[in-house]
Amino acid sequence: MHDVLSRAAALAKHSDSSRNYTRTYLTPAHQAAARHIAAWMREAGMSVRVDAMGSVIGRLEGPPGAKTLLMGSHFDSVRDGGKYDGVLGILLPIAVADELQRCGERPPVAFEVAAFADEEGARFQTSFLASRAMLNGAESVRPLLDRRDADGISFADAMHAAGLDPARIDEARIDASNLCAYLEVHIEQGPVLLDRGAPLGVVTSIAGGSRHLVTVRGEAGHAGTVPMPMRHDAMVAAAEMVLAVEDCAARAKLVGTVGIVQVKNGTGNVIAGEVEFTVDLRAPDDLRRRALERDVLGRFDAIASRRGVRVEAVKRHEVSAAPCAPWLQDQVAASITAAGAEPLRLPSGAGHDAMILAEVVDVGMMFVRCGAGGVSHNPAETVSGEDAALAARALLAFVRNFKPR
Amino acid sequence: MHDVLSRAAALAKHSDSSRNYTRTYLTPAHQAAARHIAAWMREAGMSVRVDAMGSVIGRLEGPPGAKTLLMGSHFDSVRDGGKYDGVLGILLPIAVADELQRCGERPPVAFEVAAFADEEGARFQTSFLASRAMLNGAESVRPLLDRRDADGISFADAMHAAGLDPARIDEARIDASNLCAYLEVHIEQGPVLLDRGAPLGVVTSIAGGSRHLVTVRGEAGHAGTVPMPMRHDAMVAAAEMVLAVEDCAARAKLVGTVGIVQVKNGTGNVIAGEVEFTVDLRAPDDLRRRALERDVLGRFDAIASRRGVRVEAVKRHEVSAAPCAPWLQDQVAASITAAGAEPLRLPSGAGHDAMILAEVVDVGMMFVRCGAGGVSHNPAETVSGEDAALAARALLAFVRNFKPR
Repeated sequence: MHDVLSRAAALAKHSDSSRNYTRTYLTPAHQAAARHIAAWMREAGMSVRVDAMGSVIGRLEGPPGAKTLLMGSHFDSVRDGGKYDGVLGILLPIAVADELQRCGERPPVAFEVAAFADEEGARFQTSFLASRAMLNGAESVRPLLDRRDADGISFADAMHAAGLDPARIDEARIDASNLCAYLEVHIEQGPVLLDRGAPLGVVTSIAGGSRHLVTVRGEAGHAGTVPMPMRHDAMVAAAEMVLAVEDCAARAKLVGTVGIVQVKNGTGNVIAGEVEFTVDLRAPDDLRRRALERDVLGRFDAIASRRGVRVEAVKRHEVSAAPCAPWLQDQVAASITAAGAEPLRLPSGAGHDAMILAEVVDVGMMFVRCGAGGVSHNPAETVSGEDAALAARALLAFVRNFKPR
Repeated sequence: MHDVLSRAAALAKHSDSSRNYTRTYLTPAHQAAARHIAAWMREAGMSVRVDAMGSVIGRLEGPPGAKTLLMGSHFDSVRDGGKYDGVLGILLPIAVADELQRCGERPPVAFEVAAFADEEGARFQTSFLASRAMLNGAESVRPLLDRRDADGISFADAMHAAGLDPARIDEARIDASNLCAYLEVHIEQGPVLLDRGAPLGVVTSIAGGSRHLVTVRGEAGHAGTVPMPMRHDAMVAAAEMVLAVEDCAARAKLVGTVGIVQVKNGTGNVIAGEVEFTVDLRAPDDLRRRALERDVLGRFDAIASRRGVRVEAVKRHEVSAAPCAPWLQDQVAASITAAGAEPLRLPSGAGHDAMILAEVVDVGMMFVRCGAGGVSHNPAETVSGEDAALAARALLAFVRNFKPR
């Protein structure tokens, strides 16, 4: 089978920047990457089409009347990203198609590989754009067409420049009733497989999440003149809340993160009067996430009341968890076992195109171990050659043995 | 005696801004305020000189050969400040001189009132500039002459525009051996007198302080994919350090403040990799402050080590405490008692010109109760008419009964 890591390295050369790997939607580098992917698909015996959003879809026909097993992931990147994020979930299924062709085999169902043109959305601050358009057509894209990138180029103009027609976005929509499953392979983007010594994982669920913006209002004052017991320091209260997020998330065995903290008009010699911070809470199950949310917000209120400050938390964003279909989890697990590894089941904390596909079809995900401590969205992101080869063998086994539900 | 609060209100009309009370060094409003103060001093029978920095000094002669009791404070303000900060320590001694003149009395020693032209230093980011020049001449000012204000006007040009000559700054220097004491009256700028129901306070010491810039380096990571026990979150570690500052300062009955916290490249869905924050520690006694510093930095190290992050604290600023002379404290206390109030002894957490004068002469300070919860450096700063009148009577008693050591 093909050396997927060499292909990932070759693909990473199509970058918007000469200094790092950054490939954003519809730039020249992005279009070159799309052509490169299409060429590999054709080499693997697939028929190839480019949809109205610029996603590249390769297809191997199955038996007459068979539904379609769709695999895929994205080929755009974050700024200064890692070269396996997304790309692995395109190159591995292409390698499978290639191997099937080499062996003269036909897949048990029709087999498609979608290389989604935009998932990270770094250029126009979008998310899951290409997979959303594939399911919902123009309605999820049209409101965004006036957005401009950092150079002032509008989304619509970027489409025109890439030979795409914003008036025809709706043609990206597929008939989801033809799909029997969606499977996405992705680098884990975290340290769990690394920590457990497992090369491959079976994703049980893609975590849902909520984002709150929290404002704490206390009393500003002179850092030298207000005795500690008389203070209503918004920053000290916020610090206690940050620790409460950690504590609640750890107890619930979920994750909670305060990624931004800002003292309004902060000065070294002034007691903080107002502090804003973000809280990101995630769980593989919405009920558990809501329980965590209640727990965290309850702790905030108790801290605020004890310290004589006011706290206000506004929900800015919420996305539901997408459970992976148990029958697909089992087939992914069996294929990992067939390839000679122990399948480890774990939730995905990051979002993936599979969350969007889950709205219309059963989805599964296979994780590949992330090296370097689990770092991703970063040039230090790594996958070992052994793990990539194992993933290719497992994925081949998955396709060969695939049984629609 | 004169109504000091009406005079403070009249003086606050000399403002750089029509929207609030802001009076910075050598602006037209600042020069008008200087003329207004000089006129009040003359009315009170004082001979008046303007020194090379623009400070206004009024003098009542004492018995032949007597040394000089200097009183004073500053008439510049912070931006959008309160109208008693500094000004009270000029207007109250002028009211005393006025009353002595009205009664035909001569003070027991020569009596001078210095209205310092620049203490807050909001225009050129200076501090204690006028009192420093009075003691040290040009050496403390010359390195700053190239500084520019927000409009690009240099310090030297601002002096020229106000009729002052940067080449003659050294002439501001006085012969400190002629002084027998310096006494500064100031609004407390904190809530202690208010809290204890005491209108006037005897300052025991002006707190020294240190400022550290602390950097915590952990491991950035995806907010969804790194389990809580595997994180090295710089923000959570910093939050624990903020609480440690509060705890150590409260136990030591001193003050500690984290006024600025910043997550470097903070994003809501990324675990903080690096956080910077400031720590301001103050104590009326340098030994106690150094013990607090050791305690706080020791706690930082323990937190960092337990959480697997690195911490680095760099001292950016340090100023020694200035104890008030016990013999002056006792005379201030006696004058407060004579005016009919209970003298409360307390340290000053804020810095004052008295810290500079303390380098060459015994200093004392009297605090006047600050209303509105102790707010200062803010338009909400208030002093009651009763407290101002009481302070005037106490200060008159202080001067009448003053005995040099």
